[in-house]
This record gives sequence, structure tokens and C-alpha cells, in this order.
Amino acid sequence: MLFAVIPAGGSGTRLWPLSRAGHPKFLHPLTGTESSLLQATVARLAPLTTPDRTLVVTGAAHAAAVARQLTSLPEENILVEPSPRDSCAAIALAAAVIATREPQAVMGSFAADHLIRDPQTWVGTVREAVAGAEQGLLMTVGITPTRPETGYGYLQCGELLGTGPLRRVEEFKEKPPAEVAQEYLRSGRHLWNASMFVWRVDVFLAELARQQPTLHAGVTTIADAWDTPERENVLGSVWPTLPRISVDYAVMEGAAAAGRVATVPGDFGWNDVGDFDTLGDVLAPDGARNVVLGGGPAESKPGVLLRDSTGLVVVPHSGRLVAALGVRDLIVVDTPDALLVCPRDRAQDVKKLVDELRERGEERYV
Amino acid sequence: MLFAVIPAGGSGTRLWPLSRAGHPKFLHPLTGTESSLLQATVARLAPLTTPDRTLVVTGAAHAAAVARQLTSLPEENILVEPSPRDSCAAIALAAAVIATREPQAVMGSFAADHLIRDPQTWVGTVREAVAGAEQGLLMTVGITPTRPETGYGYLQCGELLGTGPLRRVEEFKEKPPAEVAQEYLRSGRHLWNASMFVWRVDVFLAELARQQPTLHAGVTTIADAWDTPERENVLGSVWPTLPRISVDYAVMEGAAAAGRVATVPGDFGWNDVGDFDTLGDVLAPDGARNVVLGGGPAESKPGVLLRDSTGLVVVPHSGRLVAALGVRDLIVVDTPDALLVCPRDRAQDVKKLVDELRERGEERYV
Repeated sequence: MLFAVIPAGGSGTRLWPLSRAGHPKFLHPLTGTESSLLQATVARLAPLTTPDRTLVVTGAAHAAAVARQLTSLPEENILVEPSPRDSCAAIALAAAVIATREPQAVMGSFAADHLIRDPQTWVGTVREAVAGAEQGLLMTVGITPTRPETGYGYLQCGELLGTGPLRRVEEFKEKPPAEVAQEYLRSGRHLWNASMFVWRVDVFLAELARQQPTLHAGVTTIADAWDTPERENVLGSVWPTLPRISVDYAVMEGAAAAGRVATVPGDFGWNDVGDFDTLGDVLAPDGARNVVLGGGPAESKPGVLLRDSTGLVVVPHSGRLVAALGVRDLIVVDTPDALLVCPRDRAQDVKKLVDELRERGEERYV
Repeated sequence: MLFAVIPAGGSGTRLWPLSRAGHPKFLHPLTGTESSLLQATVARLAPLTTPDRTLVVTGAAHAAAVARQLTSLPEENILVEPSPRDSCAAIALAAAVIATREPQAVMGSFAADHLIRDPQTWVGTVREAVAGAEQGLLMTVGITPTRPETGYGYLQCGELLGTGPLRRVEEFKEKPPAEVAQEYLRSGRHLWNASMFVWRVDVFLAELARQQPTLHAGVTTIADAWDTPERENVLGSVWPTLPRISVDYAVMEGAAAAGRVATVPGDFGWNDVGDFDTLGDVLAPDGARNVVLGGGPAESKPGVLLRDSTGLVVVPHSGRLVAALGVRDLIVVDTPDALLVCPRDRAQDVKKLVDELRERGEERYV
């Protein structure tokens, strides 16, 4: 049975002022239900594994919130990073800890802050990835692109492995310019990199040792001390020395070049919920095409009054009444200490506001 | 020296959610300074009269707030209506109370919730009205129209009295349809009725006795008891019997028909601050044409972050950060329990939202 690892980091600046450094995206109920993205991620794993075999890696600042949201997870499965060292350190630590329990276990790594519309199809795709991982491949799940997206990285696929659906991954491609993204869309051999990985921990750790010996040595030392009284000391001294690097750059690109990476193409309504416009696309709108976060039709929400308004994304998150009259395609995010009003087609620029607040020294809003 | 009367009533529904039944328009600092409209009204009277001779007539619900805003006014000059009976009862009560102190005094009645850009010119105009009142005329101050406004009543003027600037008022015209308003604008003999009146109290009370004998008898009874221990009893029993009627309908129309009304045309930047669009027109905008209530340029306000935005009217009234990105000609009103987002050209319809809230039984927001 699969070990599931959920790296829960990143603040989601484009979802400001809902998402904050202190209360990031994955902790918020951006799912159209009461569940947070993190809770939905764990719930989605139910057919694949158990809470005992589910690990979350998160920052010290969020450990308490994660522990309270995921009451079913054993305490020891919440791995707390003393400081952010990017995704490779987080995932590698989890792999090394799992390896001390079960040296040849298959683990999957799944982002804490993505939405999946069709979880059942997703489970099937992950099972195919697990089959590939059992054969010793470093598996990714690739998303069949539906538009020439410039905001994601891509997987460039090669030949089918056996009778499929697994395909070799030739190369990891960075976020492309618009023209290149158009080409990728036409090519039929480029998939979105959704940062879902499935592998045997021994295979991953061997590849890590080959490409990132320092990182490998560091996480191995930490994992060896994990179940001892020395954990805190070792973590405190070794963790800060680990290189800050993403798992894509650190391991997957080199592994792909060596022919060790494959992918399962997936089509299960994946969305990274990067900004409020995307959120509006993915959640169910009411009759006037308005999306009000919190579930149920807008008209029935006591705290929202929308009149002659359409295409809105409304986040009534302060408990106050949000009234809109005669506006369209607008984002209105209402939080206890900050309010955002912005057209949906400027949703990407919200992070610039956050930058500006930092420049102005107004960190309390960030 | 003039007695000044300030009827402070009306809730200003089009200024919702800033203006509420419990904290109406005149109590708010909609002046571009720290002063409320009511305080600015009293301050504007300084060259014309003293606090001793300034009376405010207001509802029981607002008496305490009025008393605290107008600390210079003697307590006994705040006349508290037990229930709203429209403007005629309020103004007539003040006139009757003044008449017990000084039977031939000249009084002026000035709305508590209008803005005047050029108070010095206004003082000059009122002095001309006082001169007319001393001759026994019921004086109004008429505003030279600058646009075919359909939201105001008009004064239809006749011949000049003497060498001017006083003109006879032939008729009071109700809020006209657009075509008629265009005609009025062209005619050169129609002025906006700004509900400013100046008259000798004996002249007004005689006209009231002629046209509204019940109202006259009622306010006279109340005024006679005003400085006695019977005030409360008499007010409590007589006030509820007074007809609900505006002073325009009750007295001024009939007086005009009898040739007893005149006007001084005035041009002093009058604005009734009826809605947020008007408010945006009258207050000084910043370089990006944004008006942020509270005075000073928007960029310097710590609680406001406006980026790529123009033509906004922003009321940051909750102490929270209001951030706008890429929007134009929008009204954003942020209060502790309700938020409004609405284009400036829909400012008139804000009252419909208030109606809807009432229908929904959400009186707590009204």
C-alpha cells in the first residue's frame, strides 16, 4: 500500500488577501465545501492509502493549523521543517523517513493546494503510476493540456512503455512563452507538470544520492535520528545546511535525461487554484454566473447581496454583508482586515499588490 | 441677529452602507475634513449667528449623537422630536419656540446634510434673504441650476422685487421628468429648491395658521409648555397628532400662490450629497481622479492601496485595508458590518439594495 506525502508549503500570494503568509492557501476552504484544500487532498487519498501511511511536511508556522485540520493523522506523521528549504528537501526528508520504516515502499507526493474535480479518475491514474513505480520508474502524473498555459511547467513525452498508458518523459520544460505554449498544445506530446510524483523510496533516494549527495546525506542523517531523542538536535543542525532547490530541478530533470522518468497522462479536472479567476472557473456558479465561496447558491447566503451583477467571484470571509450592485466579472474578497476589489482578468496581478505592501512596510497585511 | 434652525433628519439611504437609520448621513464626515455634515453646517453659520441662537431639531434616536457633535450648542437648543412628523412639524416647532423668546425674530432653516463649497458667498446670499424676510416675505434660497437635474424640486421665479436680487417665487415645482428639466435649465427662471428658508417667525406662523390650522395650534401648544415642567407631557400627547407633511407642501406652495414667497438666487457650490457619485464630484480627487473619504491624497492613506485604478470613490470606514486593482469609476464603501461595490453611474440605485435588505428582513444592516 502507498505511502502518501503532502508537502504543504507556499503562501499563494495571488490569492491575497484570503491567503496570507501566516494562513496560506492550503488551509483555506477553496473547494466549494467546508473542507480546506489540504483536507480535500487527504480525503481524496482514502481509496489509495490510510492516515497511518499519510505524511504531511509543513513549516513550523503552520504545524498547529495542519494538526488541527487533519485530526485523523497520527501526530508523528506531521513532519515539521524548521525553515523553508524548497520542495526537494521536504520530499526527500519524507522519503528517507519512510525508508526507515519500509525500505522499498512506494510513495506518492501530492500538492496540498490543488483541486481535482473527478477524484475517482484521479485514483485510477495514480494506481497506474504506482504500477510504473513498482517497476523502478520515477513516475509523474501529467495533465493533458486544454489551453496554451504559460503559467505551468511541461513534461515532454517520448515513446509508450509497453502497451501504455505509461510514457517515457524525455525532458522537463520550464514555464514557456505564449508561442511555445501554443506549440506544446499542438504537439500532442507535452503534458502539464502537476508536481505529482510516485516512486519507490529506494529508487528515489538512489537518484538523489547520485545527483544531490549533500541533500541525500543530510536527509539520511535526519531520518536516522527521527525516532530517537536526538531528532531535534540533528534536525536543527543539519536542516539549515540543506540546499534550497525544487525536486524538479534537483532530481527529476537529471533522472529524465538518464531515461528513468515516466508519466501517466491524466484528465481528472485538475486545477492548481492559483488565483481567484481560476477559482471562479472551477467552482459551481449560480444562475447569474456568480461564484460565492462557501458552497450553495449566492442568493441563499445571508451575508451576500448581489443585484444586477454577473461573473463575480465573491469571498465573504469576514462575516460582514457583501453587497454588489451593477458590476460584472469582478473579484471581491472580504477578510477581517483587508478587502480586495479587482477585475477577474487582473487576477494574476494581485501578487503585485502584495509586493507593494511589502515595499510599504505593511507586512501585517501580507 | 438671525436664529438658525437645523432640521436634522432623514437617513440618506443612497449613502448606504455608510449612512444608516441609526447613524444617518448628517452625522458622517462627508465634507473632506474631520467635520460631519452637521458640524460643518453649524460652523458655516458662525458669521451669521451664535450657538445661543442656533437650534437643531432631531429625532430621539439621534439626540445623543447630535449633542456630542455640537458641544458648543446649549442643551436646550437641541429640540427632540418624539417621532418623525416630516419637515413642517420640525420647522414649525422651532419657529414657535423662537417666537416665545422673540416674537418677531428672523429665522433661517438650513438642512443638516448639504455641502457648500463657498461658505462666504453663501453667507452673503443668506444676508440678502434676511433683508427680504425683514420686509415680511417668506424667503427661499434658490440655486442656479448647472444641469437638467431630475432629482430636485424647482422654484419658478417671477419678477424682480425692487432692484433685485430678490425675485418673486410664482410656483414650487416637483422633481421634473428629464425633458421638463431641460426646459427649466433653458428657461432662466427656474432655480433648484435647496430647502433653505428665511422668514420672520410671526410671518411664518401666521401663514401656517392660515393653511395648516391644526399644525399651528399643535406647535403653539407645545411651545407654550416648552419652558415649563409640562413640556414632556404636552409633547407626548400633542406631537403624535400633528400631520406628517413637508413644509414645501404645507406652507410654501400656498404662500407662493398668495404672492408671499421670494427667493435669492445663489451660486456657492451647493451639493446635497445625495449619493456617493455626487460625493465623488464634490470632494477633491487625487491625481488618478480617485476620491478617498477622510481628506488628503489617496496614496498617503495607510488604509488604502489603489493600483491602476481611476475615478473611484472609496470610503474606508472600517479601519481595514481597502485594496483596488485595475478598476475604474467604482464606489467601494467599507464599513464594519457591510461592504458595497457599485459603479458610480448606479449610485442612485443603492437605495434599492436597502429596500431589498428590508424585504429580506435584514433590518440590522439598514
